[in-house]
Amino acid sequence: MRDYDESTITRAVVDSFRITPDPRLRQIMISLTEHLHDFVRDVELTFAEWQYAIEFLTRTGQTCTATRQEFILLSDTLGVSMLVDAINHGAPEEVTETTVLGPFYVQNPPELPHGADVSHGQSGEPLYVEGTVRSADGQMLDGAVIDIWHSDPDGFYDVQRSDLEEPTFRARFRTDVQGQFHFWSIMPKFYPIPDDGPVGEMLKATERHPYRPAHVHFMIGAPGHETLITHVYAADSPYLDSDAVFGVKRSLVAAIIHEAPGIAPDGRVMDKPWRRLSYDFSLKPAEQVPLPFRARSDPAE
Amino acid sequence: MRDYDESTITRAVVDSFRITPDPRLRQIMISLTEHLHDFVRDVELTFAEWQYAIEFLTRTGQTCTATRQEFILLSDTLGVSMLVDAINHGAPEEVTETTVLGPFYVQNPPELPHGADVSHGQSGEPLYVEGTVRSADGQMLDGAVIDIWHSDPDGFYDVQRSDLEEPTFRARFRTDVQGQFHFWSIMPKFYPIPDDGPVGEMLKATERHPYRPAHVHFMIGAPGHETLITHVYAADSPYLDSDAVFGVKRSLVAAIIHEAPGIAPDGRVMDKPWRRLSYDFSLKPAEQVPLPFRARSDPAE
Ligand SMILES: [Fe+2]
Ligand SMILES: [Fe+2]
Repeated sequence: MRDYDESTITRAVVDSFRITPDPRLRQIMISLTEHLHDFVRDVELTFAEWQYAIEFLTRTGQTCTATRQEFILLSDTLGVSMLVDAINHGAPEEVTETTVLGPFYVQNPPELPHGADVSHGQSGEPLYVEGTVRSADGQMLDGAVIDIWHSDPDGFYDVQRSDLEEPTFRARFRTDVQGQFHFWSIMPKFYPIPDDGPVGEMLKATERHPYRPAHVHFMIGAPGHETLITHVYAADSPYLDSDAVFGVKRSLVAAIIHEAPGIAPDGRVMDKPWRRLSYDFSLKPAEQVPLPFRARSDPAE
Repeated sequence: MRDYDESTITRAVVDSFRITPDPRLRQIMISLTEHLHDFVRDVELTFAEWQYAIEFLTRTGQTCTATRQEFILLSDTLGVSMLVDAINHGAPEEVTETTVLGPFYVQNPPELPHGADVSHGQSGEPLYVEGTVRSADGQMLDGAVIDIWHSDPDGFYDVQRSDLEEPTFRARFRTDVQGQFHFWSIMPKFYPIPDDGPVGEMLKATERHPYRPAHVHFMIGAPGHETLITHVYAADSPYLDSDAVFGVKRSLVAAIIHEAPGIAPDGRVMDKPWRRLSYDFSLKPAEQVPLPFRARSDPAE
């Protein structure tokens, strides 16, 4: 038995994790203990602040529901989500960059034919979206699955509205033999992340705004490739420089062209101005599991 | 606008907190960001591990109820609670050491007269508890309020049992003019912290046991003194060397003497063996708020 002081308590907790059978879990628990204790020592956390932290974390967990994930918001606003993204996706070469998934993805959206209007007649500035999906080596990908979702012109997703009877501003498309796809919608708007919970309190207390620049979400999958989770941001949106979740990357910002009334690329006759977003995606090859004998027989070794 | 990599993302989040009006909150948020990011970078957290962490924290919050605080258990088992204790109470001189509050305190327990039996007839090994409460300068404290609570002989607190109709193994006493108090109960037992939730999963996965050595909780308050929150541990209990929450301090371990049948100090006739716990408490003076002119006029400055 021994008495712990500010520094020996850390060693005691670390030692308690030394018998963890799984080496990865052991590494994570020891590192977590060391960094968490360093933080508490660094700020000399008071008992009242500790009580507040316990209560804040408890409310964060209890704010989560089937349609709201407050801990993801906390991770997003503290930059942890984008740090995990940076660590795992590194600096890409010739493949489209990734960004946060966000809390509004719904699995298996309705698959629609090319040229469909995913706004289902909701009013707004018409938006034509077109693009291609190819492999990192430039080969066009036929049959790639593209899930898209975005906010309405007020900044709300369909799942945040009670007046919509079908999935809106979200759909699934499939590339044709040339790796192409296109669809119609209406312009999304910048929006605040949900800020009526503990994360909103944190943003208010620190005088940070909750806004994200206008964007369209894409999740693109094709056999033999890593599934791409990303956004394309509107180049003329506010908040590109101060995204509340730090998710903007320059390569993901695209001009959404103002077009005059006339005939759109798919033959649709437009009697008012419309917008046009063109973006080409490039998918990373799926990671190959290295064969155990590979390193030994590789002449480069 | 700029692209963030593994290191620049941290600077961006830190910068977002620079405008926080409250300097203490600013300091905490910046330090939290830096240490949290260091941890994520240190272990190179994968996306799947991040998802598990989000889900673990969510379940930890949702396990909390009016009678259960899973985030306190997490803080306790990671040694954070005792680290906060060490930071705020330092190395005491001539005052009783502190330890964790634990999750089983109930405010305003029934006040009982000296010599009362807080077990209310529950069967077990009789325990006589006696002690004194004094100031750090040795002066006996008259009318100090002493809240006590402890487990039953199976390791459960009254709030964990459904068969008890009144507060049991818990009460409030008040010292007499000599600063003394005494009461009867039955011997507590070592016990596991609640381990059927996320914290229990963590302990199982890391092969740590959930046990705490046998102890009696004390919360002692007197005017002009800091309220003392502590335990007295039984010197013959298992787990003194491996308390699941790192709460043991040598000065808080006391022999609980085996006594033969006969007459107890308060005159009670004991027809079977009983145990005797004697412990004297010493309270820290309440912290004085320093006067603003103090530093300027202090000749030692
Ligand atoms: Fe979004
Ligand atoms: Fe206890």
